[in-house]
Amino acid sequence: MSTPSPPNLALNRSSVQSAFEIIQPLIHRTPIFTSSSLSASLPGQNSLYFKAENLQKGGAFKFRGASYSLSCLTKAELEKGNHAGALALAAKERGVKCYVVMPDNSSQPKVDAVRAYGAEITFCEPNAPARASTLAAVQARTGATFIPPYDAANTIFGQGTALLELLEQAPEPLAAVVAPVGGGGLLAGTALAAEGTGVRVFGAEPAGADDCAQGLREGRRREDVTAVTIADGLRTPVGVLNFPIIQEKVERVIVVSDEEIAEAMKLMWERLKLVVEPSGAAAFAAVRSPAFQDLGIKGPVGIIISGGNIDLSKPLPWNGQK
Amino acid sequence: MSTPSPPNLALNRSSVQSAFEIIQPLIHRTPIFTSSSLSASLPGQNSLYFKAENLQKGGAFKFRGASYSLSCLTKAELEKGNHAGALALAAKERGVKCYVVMPDNSSQPKVDAVRAYGAEITFCEPNAPARASTLAAVQARTGATFIPPYDAANTIFGQGTALLELLEQAPEPLAAVVAPVGGGGLLAGTALAAEGTGVRVFGAEPAGADDCAQGLREGRRREDVTAVTIADGLRTPVGVLNFPIIQEKVERVIVVSDEEIAEAMKLMWERLKLVVEPSGAAAFAAVRSPAFQDLGIKGPVGIIISGGNIDLSKPLPWNGQK
Repeated sequence: MSTPSPPNLALNRSSVQSAFEIIQPLIHRTPIFTSSSLSASLPGQNSLYFKAENLQKGGAFKFRGASYSLSCLTKAELEKGNHAGALALAAKERGVKCYVVMPDNSSQPKVDAVRAYGAEITFCEPNAPARASTLAAVQARTGATFIPPYDAANTIFGQGTALLELLEQAPEPLAAVVAPVGGGGLLAGTALAAEGTGVRVFGAEPAGADDCAQGLREGRRREDVTAVTIADGLRTPVGVLNFPIIQEKVERVIVVSDEEIAEAMKLMWERLKLVVEPSGAAAFAAVRSPAFQDLGIKGPVGIIISGGNIDLSKPLPWNGQK
Repeated sequence: MSTPSPPNLALNRSSVQSAFEIIQPLIHRTPIFTSSSLSASLPGQNSLYFKAENLQKGGAFKFRGASYSLSCLTKAELEKGNHAGALALAAKERGVKCYVVMPDNSSQPKVDAVRAYGAEITFCEPNAPARASTLAAVQARTGATFIPPYDAANTIFGQGTALLELLEQAPEPLAAVVAPVGGGGLLAGTALAAEGTGVRVFGAEPAGADDCAQGLREGRRREDVTAVTIADGLRTPVGVLNFPIIQEKVERVIVVSDEEIAEAMKLMWERLKLVVEPSGAAAFAAVRSPAFQDLGIKGPVGIIISGGNIDLSKPLPWNGQK
């Protein structure tokens, strides 16, 4: 299987910094948001700094990893480039042909966005074996290079740049940062970016897809956990490369229910006036949970809002339906 | 009736600039948003600069006028200060007691917000005579000073500061700006702030409450127009002081249907990832309308998103119900 050139960079903070230098001209520097009422509503009254990656190009942090991955391809590889999701936009901006394999239950806005960015979509059944065989068939037909969505060093470095930006933007040093975990690109990247800063790193995972939290308890990566949650971006099992980074560098992955996610999401819509998808509300749900509050962390907390891509033609999750 | 000290300032741009100097430390400098996909979707492909007053304190531009009005009260008047809406927050920040008269069909989040800011609410029936008599009774009981929500020079100057900020923030000169019109504080203020800049000023008004557009056609202010629209912030008839300013300085008030407002609102939620209330989407609806596009304006257009206070426990307006 044709994959991008192996990264020459070590799994550490300076690799995230190198990625940041390269992608800075390509990405949005997303703003940070604060809310005195949301801060005051927490028992610990921590100042909160929300990093609004829902305002990133493509509506999610994914654009960071996709941009960096594309930047690392050789010219020969670029001429047969390929990918999924935000990569379609990064590819479009460079005039590279992009092929996307998507599960056939993907939400319509996500499908529409990929099409609008000019990518060619091949649909597959929504499970790992179907995805792998469809991917192999597309690669055989097109000769395209596969760019993994989370289980790759370059992707992890790219995603970690969100924390570097947040640390530059926050007016005071953070005591902790919380990021959601699905495949683990964002959380592993965040953990690498936090190295040596003294910022404690936490993950947030939905109870209905808590393979990472279970894996951490058992000391081995789990792939066999069923994923049933409104946080569609966090259904993926954590990746092979991602898991040991999280194991080593993340203090704890906090598990939150779909109800806690929906509540946090509604508060963010109301108070921050931001459209946040369920996955994007998971980190704030974790900060609001007793599990986090009981840690007694003093000082400012960073919260990464991972994305805002939601099908608005459906009822909102707190209005009865999912 | 006890009212604030009459303003000593003329109805012109420099009065808006004076207001801006005074309230700058009190208000949020709200960010501007752009969207290449929304710009590209217009026939004229104008660059669009959205001024996000939904991110203002209290969730709407109203905080500007309220802050400036409070700043203009004498110390004696401040000790018996009073008002409605965003004023409750401005009053709270200065430790002034605030009395609010609200229609009894006000949305729950608006009521909750006023209460959270510590104001004392008296409800009245949702019509002008009931509001006036309740206001008079509250004033008689408390001795409080009445601060008008839109029909006052200081309020108009305060609201006009949103355009001053937008002009500073936009990276290129604007050809035009569009603001919604209800009572007319924001639109009249915007028109004053645009004086001498060459920026053409347009209003946006819902078809179900188009008293200002009708009044402009007939050359006299209309107060007898029924108000039936999803844009609850724009149901108020245009004010006595506001109308002649709009008549003189606004090129045209563009009327948009509730369907056009809901469509514009959905696009803004999807593409800008911002929670915008129906009134806050009216200006973008106007820009998308044939009436505006047929003007053939070349160059960048500013759009004022007036607010983001919406009851999220109800279905969204494009999902069937109002």
